[in-house]
Amino acid sequence: MIVTPQTQRFDEPLPLRSGAVLPAYELVYETYGSLNADRSNAVLICHALNASHHVAGLHADERGQPIARSEGWWHNMIGPGKSVDTNRWFVIGVNNIGSCFGSTGPTHTNPATGQPWGADFPVVTVEDWVDAQARLLDILGIEQLAAVMGGSLGGMQTLSWTLQYPERVRHAVVVASAPNLTAENIAFNEVARRAIVTDPDFHDGHYLRAGTLPRRGLRIARMIGHITYLSDDVMNEKFGRTLRAADGEDPAAAAELVYRYSTQDVEFQIESYLRYQGDKFSEYFDANTYLLITRALDYFDPAREYDGNLSAALARARAKFLLVSFTTDWRFSPARSREIVKALLENRRDVSYAEIDAPHGHDAFLLDDPRYHAAVKSYFEQTIAGGVQ
Amino acid sequence: MIVTPQTQRFDEPLPLRSGAVLPAYELVYETYGSLNADRSNAVLICHALNASHHVAGLHADERGQPIARSEGWWHNMIGPGKSVDTNRWFVIGVNNIGSCFGSTGPTHTNPATGQPWGADFPVVTVEDWVDAQARLLDILGIEQLAAVMGGSLGGMQTLSWTLQYPERVRHAVVVASAPNLTAENIAFNEVARRAIVTDPDFHDGHYLRAGTLPRRGLRIARMIGHITYLSDDVMNEKFGRTLRAADGEDPAAAAELVYRYSTQDVEFQIESYLRYQGDKFSEYFDANTYLLITRALDYFDPAREYDGNLSAALARARAKFLLVSFTTDWRFSPARSREIVKALLENRRDVSYAEIDAPHGHDAFLLDDPRYHAAVKSYFEQTIAGGVQ
Repeated sequence: MIVTPQTQRFDEPLPLRSGAVLPAYELVYETYGSLNADRSNAVLICHALNASHHVAGLHADERGQPIARSEGWWHNMIGPGKSVDTNRWFVIGVNNIGSCFGSTGPTHTNPATGQPWGADFPVVTVEDWVDAQARLLDILGIEQLAAVMGGSLGGMQTLSWTLQYPERVRHAVVVASAPNLTAENIAFNEVARRAIVTDPDFHDGHYLRAGTLPRRGLRIARMIGHITYLSDDVMNEKFGRTLRAADGEDPAAAAELVYRYSTQDVEFQIESYLRYQGDKFSEYFDANTYLLITRALDYFDPAREYDGNLSAALARARAKFLLVSFTTDWRFSPARSREIVKALLENRRDVSYAEIDAPHGHDAFLLDDPRYHAAVKSYFEQTIAGGVQ
Repeated sequence: MIVTPQTQRFDEPLPLRSGAVLPAYELVYETYGSLNADRSNAVLICHALNASHHVAGLHADERGQPIARSEGWWHNMIGPGKSVDTNRWFVIGVNNIGSCFGSTGPTHTNPATGQPWGADFPVVTVEDWVDAQARLLDILGIEQLAAVMGGSLGGMQTLSWTLQYPERVRHAVVVASAPNLTAENIAFNEVARRAIVTDPDFHDGHYLRAGTLPRRGLRIARMIGHITYLSDDVMNEKFGRTLRAADGEDPAAAAELVYRYSTQDVEFQIESYLRYQGDKFSEYFDANTYLLITRALDYFDPAREYDGNLSAALARARAKFLLVSFTTDWRFSPARSREIVKALLENRRDVSYAEIDAPHGHDAFLLDDPRYHAAVKSYFEQTIAGGVQ
């Protein structure tokens, strides 16, 4: 399945929750499958921190040949015959405002200055993203979605869809998410942000004008994030205390390796892995985008205007729900999903809930897990498709 | 109880596990209480990452007056009439080599160059520290300790004492510790180290020569550490999602505050707390010391030379043990203490184990908790004192 991103320009200003207004903007999106005649089979996928509109399929090079390893970030979930079957559903992936993957964001030009937005890009929220996504659906002629679906921060957008546009969502699939961040979640975000903004190459967020990139800070931010995506168990299983072979040493003989006694060189495999992840991330991700997206995570809290009463906050929802959580996810633990389930049940909403016993921590929502994928497939085939027919 | 640190110089070189040799060094230490006539009531306290020899009592100013808030780091545990009763025990606190609190470390002058050691200070291990502590005891005329005691990294030293000098330790009190670090523990240390060494002010560890200090990196390192010392629960209870009042706003009306929508300003109390902790730490702690001590944590692994068999590794121990863990400690979880308990029992050692239901995470080992302090008090009064009499 080869896909091509499309760009939609919006000249109507977008009012943001912060009070600021985004004067004009573009959204980059992809679609998979075909919209049916009565426009009832659309499924919107919302992305998380470092993902994009490229949800499924492959991109092609100039000769039309598929680019190796260009699969969308949820390609194991979405495609022909998959859990979200693009032979049946018209699936839409949208890149969010503030991102660095195509939609208008801090690396783009601020029309007021002719310079990159940088740190002047307005703070955006989950609610703002949902508003922008709704406008795209207007243009695509989709009045009501068969489903909105997302994991992690994408799950927050999904939940918000059911509150901001209750009549436009028939089903909400909320995976590995939470009704808000805990203090610990915010704490990890804050350390990551401090690492970025205290990098001397950050230049108060105007590093592009300065011709630099705060790569050091981004590396640290990504390393912190990565630790919280994995479970303690899976880290022990994948890396344990295994030492890394130096150049000229046989990696197969890791058990024979001895300590090199250095505070700065890589000793353990886990260090090598984290440094690699940090380095890679710092080459493609924008620092201001990282700040914006972690802040959107921090701010999301639909119960806030109801004195913390989540049940009252979710009373507006009309959709039916599938919630999925993973036992070893300590970033967005099953207890957080159960809070949402409880609040929905208090509102007598239809809720299915799958708590998947998986060892992979928060990352599990992106991985192949037969029970997880079967739960989603079953929900789409029986509950959602059942409702359409 | 007013105490004065003492300094002991050693001119005999100390061979280190790395193969390097520390040519000469000083240890700063404090003692509390009196050594009895048969020198049988000595208790050695081993310190953790950011602590020192100053375990109990108060320091005095030039006029001999106690300095406010100068209590030792374990003053709630150790002192006259306390769980470790200095009316009965002769308690010794020793600052470890590589520290920045007095004993020879990277901020001291390297005799070979006349410059601060900086990054050239040799890598030291838990075993090296124990060797150095043993030499101090030789000078103090203490052949055998009634007990060695420590929490966290101090617990690792305690455990190592029973393996390196089995005949010199009658009792070992190991609190909130582990037989080695997990991959996740190492990962957090590694991110903290990367934050320090990638700070442009680090100058390859020779920042003192350069007249700078890598404060940015130290701040980040401390913020990361601090998150792992607290439990998710206690963070939610202490900070939750409460916003911080800005200048001119009433902190008592925190519930009335609204989002300011900023990626860099403090929004949440937890951010303010972490920034404060990071700032404070970066003013007094040495970056090279941070690297050295986190590496000593990473390297500690007595089972390593026994193919990971902890039971075989602990076969040398002759001491009796008290182990204490805290239910919400996710840095050194109860499961890690139980590994030690199990391995000791397999060696038919006398082991007491207290798993304290405390909400405070790893930090609990430094806090007042009546059940925890009662368990230690009871062990010292009944088991250790019983053995002495």
